[in-house]
Amino acid sequence: MSMGEWDFIRWIQQRTTAHPSVIVGPGDDAAVLAPSANPLIATNDVLTEGIDFIVEQTTLRQIGRKAMAVNLSDIAAMAAVPTAALVGIVAPKLQMLEPDAMQELFRGLHDIAHLYEVPIVGGDTNSWDGGWVISVTVLGQATERGAVLRSGAKPGDRIFVTGPLGGSILARHLTPIPRVKEALRLHQVVNLHAMADISDGLSLDLSHILDASGCGAILDAGAIPIHADAHKLAEQSGRAPLDHALSDGEDFELVFTVNPDDAERLLQSNPVPNLTLTMIGECVEAGLWLREAGKESPLVPRGWTHSETK
Amino acid sequence: MSMGEWDFIRWIQQRTTAHPSVIVGPGDDAAVLAPSANPLIATNDVLTEGIDFIVEQTTLRQIGRKAMAVNLSDIAAMAAVPTAALVGIVAPKLQMLEPDAMQELFRGLHDIAHLYEVPIVGGDTNSWDGGWVISVTVLGQATERGAVLRSGAKPGDRIFVTGPLGGSILARHLTPIPRVKEALRLHQVVNLHAMADISDGLSLDLSHILDASGCGAILDAGAIPIHADAHKLAEQSGRAPLDHALSDGEDFELVFTVNPDDAERLLQSNPVPNLTLTMIGECVEAGLWLREAGKESPLVPRGWTHSETK
Repeated sequence: MSMGEWDFIRWIQQRTTAHPSVIVGPGDDAAVLAPSANPLIATNDVLTEGIDFIVEQTTLRQIGRKAMAVNLSDIAAMAAVPTAALVGIVAPKLQMLEPDAMQELFRGLHDIAHLYEVPIVGGDTNSWDGGWVISVTVLGQATERGAVLRSGAKPGDRIFVTGPLGGSILARHLTPIPRVKEALRLHQVVNLHAMADISDGLSLDLSHILDASGCGAILDAGAIPIHADAHKLAEQSGRAPLDHALSDGEDFELVFTVNPDDAERLLQSNPVPNLTLTMIGECVEAGLWLREAGKESPLVPRGWTHSETK
Repeated sequence: MSMGEWDFIRWIQQRTTAHPSVIVGPGDDAAVLAPSANPLIATNDVLTEGIDFIVEQTTLRQIGRKAMAVNLSDIAAMAAVPTAALVGIVAPKLQMLEPDAMQELFRGLHDIAHLYEVPIVGGDTNSWDGGWVISVTVLGQATERGAVLRSGAKPGDRIFVTGPLGGSILARHLTPIPRVKEALRLHQVVNLHAMADISDGLSLDLSHILDASGCGAILDAGAIPIHADAHKLAEQSGRAPLDHALSDGEDFELVFTVNPDDAERLLQSNPVPNLTLTMIGECVEAGLWLREAGKESPLVPRGWTHSETK
């Protein structure tokens, strides 16, 4: 830990509001948090320059926001309550940067953490000859109903998504909206069998649910909500808008399954008015299928992989 | 998350033994851990290529071991029990690497995690055009006696270290031994007022304790245990061995303070036989001083900063 890091910790401490669950925040060897009666949730996502963002195409504040948001989206996917965050930052050597580059990045991390009432309780900062790397760990706790896993889908379940999909690379991938409160609300009113956030692409994230649950799914091509960005991107790519909706990723909407009765309830009265809940298919015994014009054909799960650049 | 990452998660899953506190391990959106009655401890340390290690001078397995060990050392510094780890890895693009480079790194992380009975419950892997970055988050829980902070030192306290210091850069910095069990044992038998691990250098880490506690300290130059490596390095550097012991860092021994009665008990009967407990000074009202030949002179806290390269 360098003296520069100590200055940074003080800077963080000044901006971190007291939080009842934080016994010791940044500045000791580790953070100390109040115990919780419910299971603990923990997730870590690392964003790297040139892969998850291009510094010249955005702002460090925006990058910080994204780094925090994608982790909160993982907590949302468990229908859990986020409680604390740790941030590990690797920055290009300071002489190569604007003087307040680190602060700009931290302001972005703080913007989203603050919005979701998640204290930043610790972390690490480093500088080196390489590019930006931002590692965020978010802790949370399950509700009384428990965490929603990927492994609970059953044949006959109906499959829903929480918003339109595809084309996020045009800009939206930088401003994900973690569906934390929305997931908690859904978890209150229906029995969520399985859930994931759509980070890699609908078909790929759904396939992870199916693999974990040991079942299959048929998607209705006509029901999948396609984002305006997917239509726009399709004009450039020559691919179908539906193809973008199925495989682009970084939508950060949720995909989840419920039994037919709960599905009916959600369709009759949406408990989360700010979400466009859409039923896009159902779980079956095996395989992944796309139903188009009454005909089912195999759907190969595809999504964004880290060999591409955003 | 790429398909490559999924292969890696499966590889991890196969090597992760069942652990009673892990409800859901790697492979879901987040890990789910059993709740604990005691406060939660959380720390994150990021190691970067060229700063914390030189790939050509060591092995990826060794780097993995160090990355896990330095985080466990932070848990030790709180006298807490480590319970779970998350690892975020950024690797040079796979075509630039030996086919099993990632596995070698993970084997190293696993070696130490396994030794300390800490399950690796999640994380993230990425590849890019840059160098290696390893971000490890370790969670733990305080004992019934609570976590030991940096802020509890009092004037009159005696200051101890758990082993010889200095010259770690010659090789020892790659093989830190986190003093987890030793710290827990000390915490049982005496009232630890304040503690930190020596990562930056004795004088600098002690100054963090003094700043947090609002007091000062006098160190006895003749009492500070100097590692053989510090003597060796002094021959190359032309600096005094004591200077290396005071400021080199990455010793990963513990520095702690106790009241005079507890100090007496530790000196009469060492409760941790594998440690060389050494009393090196005492806390005073203010300042940091080095007592040499009966004379006290101000000691400027110095230590390893991240602008240097290991």
